[in-house]
Amino acid sequence: MAQKGSLLSVREDVRVLDATLRDGGLVNSFNFSDEFVKELYEANVKAGVDYMEFGYRASKELFDESKFGKWKFATDEDIRAIVGDNDTDLKISIMADVGRCDFRNDIKDRSESPVDLIRVACYIHQIPGAIEMIKYCKEKGYEVSCNIMAISKLQESDIAQALEMVCQAGPDCIYIVDSYGSLYPEQISRITEFYQNVTDKYGVALGIHAHNNQQLAFANTIEALKHGVSYLDATMSSMGRGAGNCAMELLLGFLKNPKYSFIPVLKFIETQIPKVKAEGSVWGYDVPYLLTGIMNQHPSAAIECVANKNTNYREFYEGLLDKD
Amino acid sequence: MAQKGSLLSVREDVRVLDATLRDGGLVNSFNFSDEFVKELYEANVKAGVDYMEFGYRASKELFDESKFGKWKFATDEDIRAIVGDNDTDLKISIMADVGRCDFRNDIKDRSESPVDLIRVACYIHQIPGAIEMIKYCKEKGYEVSCNIMAISKLQESDIAQALEMVCQAGPDCIYIVDSYGSLYPEQISRITEFYQNVTDKYGVALGIHAHNNQQLAFANTIEALKHGVSYLDATMSSMGRGAGNCAMELLLGFLKNPKYSFIPVLKFIETQIPKVKAEGSVWGYDVPYLLTGIMNQHPSAAIECVANKNTNYREFYEGLLDKD
Repeated sequence: MAQKGSLLSVREDVRVLDATLRDGGLVNSFNFSDEFVKELYEANVKAGVDYMEFGYRASKELFDESKFGKWKFATDEDIRAIVGDNDTDLKISIMADVGRCDFRNDIKDRSESPVDLIRVACYIHQIPGAIEMIKYCKEKGYEVSCNIMAISKLQESDIAQALEMVCQAGPDCIYIVDSYGSLYPEQISRITEFYQNVTDKYGVALGIHAHNNQQLAFANTIEALKHGVSYLDATMSSMGRGAGNCAMELLLGFLKNPKYSFIPVLKFIETQIPKVKAEGSVWGYDVPYLLTGIMNQHPSAAIECVANKNTNYREFYEGLLDKD
Repeated sequence: MAQKGSLLSVREDVRVLDATLRDGGLVNSFNFSDEFVKELYEANVKAGVDYMEFGYRASKELFDESKFGKWKFATDEDIRAIVGDNDTDLKISIMADVGRCDFRNDIKDRSESPVDLIRVACYIHQIPGAIEMIKYCKEKGYEVSCNIMAISKLQESDIAQALEMVCQAGPDCIYIVDSYGSLYPEQISRITEFYQNVTDKYGVALGIHAHNNQQLAFANTIEALKHGVSYLDATMSSMGRGAGNCAMELLLGFLKNPKYSFIPVLKFIETQIPKVKAEGSVWGYDVPYLLTGIMNQHPSAAIECVANKNTNYREFYEGLLDKD
């Protein structure tokens, strides 16, 4: 397939999205200090990052507020307390899960909100719910993406149908999401082409959200980029569920657009990441994540295994075989 | 370029080489316990690994024996003490650096040695020395590879000339070596084709030795594999200089040939790797290695930075800029 751009050139369509608070929040139940969030915002602004995701906008009807930090709910008010009028080039995103977001009550008109982009996340059986939310958010004036999760378990004919349905709802972007960190670059290349067969017809951009179970989050991200994917998710020091995500420092070290600078990212990693680690947050490549990745399974068992400091990898693997 | 094999198929030309003692020895000055080495040998045999590298055959005239463990010198006798007659399918390799190996004295006839493969490592200015050693080792009956190091700093016209010269000396294999962990998969793909333009004419196989500075050791290894590279270096739990190498557990988890099993590798990682870590050995991805990787520089400064627990990444990066 055709390559877009080269290792030396700038691709003007590229958008880097920092998902540290959102995917990283899955590690520490969204209990970030205000200092962490402010420093992250400053780092992203200075680094030329295009979007910063402040968390989920989860329903307070559904989730117990006392059990999570505020970025599980990422209200407009809490975001405003960090960004003020956000008089910067950095755009703000939130993620809204189908079935977990009370969007008609909790998502106001864009003119009243600091948020620019709403990322609607769903499983394939929730596509009609996603379409409803995409249309709602577009009508409210937001940029909208649709993140169809766990695609490595799906049949391509189903994905093709879902992509057509979603594209007709008019999102700006659809994400390729490797929820289980099970995909290899060769598959990412194929999947990108497969998605483009639909999204190109509708002028919908593509994004990539990768996990590092097999140390491929960065490799898969730049593989997708090479084939024309524009929206690239990354997190500081890879902070994210389980094995984590594509590291921002790797991605900005790779991109050639001089608008990006990884120096503010280095500063953030120096000063802030050791604190969340000291508070007990654990993420990053480890054998149990590799094993769920290879088995194309949800990382929950691996997260438990790592949390329990269980290093009986063979027994753990045997357990995964039983679940297949 | 054409792809060889697919994600589901077996490539009969593939040879997996465990370089844990050799590249990992750079981390702990080759001070491995005999138990570690024996368990590693057993694990490799059971895992179906094709070659196990026992270390360097460094000159005892040049290097002080008291400063290194025995695998810096990897004598036939020391190897025999582990493998006996090596009545297995696992072949034995050693690395011999041009200018650091007293090969006329220290490399006997293959019929008298447990070693099967000698890997001649050199920088490009040492090609005539490498040719002399390749011819010598071939005459002694060994399989021979040539590992031209630090190619990311070289001009392609020089590499092309070196490849012609080396191929004419008749090695079995030439390795693509990303000494600084600076190469991206897209470059690996290009370099593979570039090497093949010469090696295919001579029927010489290709190998890949990758480093993990940018979390790309595994990705680069399977990218090279996809384009026809046959000899794949890996180490247990990535153990190797600086950011380490392609992890054996990732590689065997990927390869589809049923002769490979990663269960013995998991056992080895469970039981032996924690011990070497407890003894103070440090390796694996960290920001300073990323920075030397991006800068295409030798990892020595990063190794010092990590050893000193210096996390002032910006200052470290500034220092690298001055060396460029």
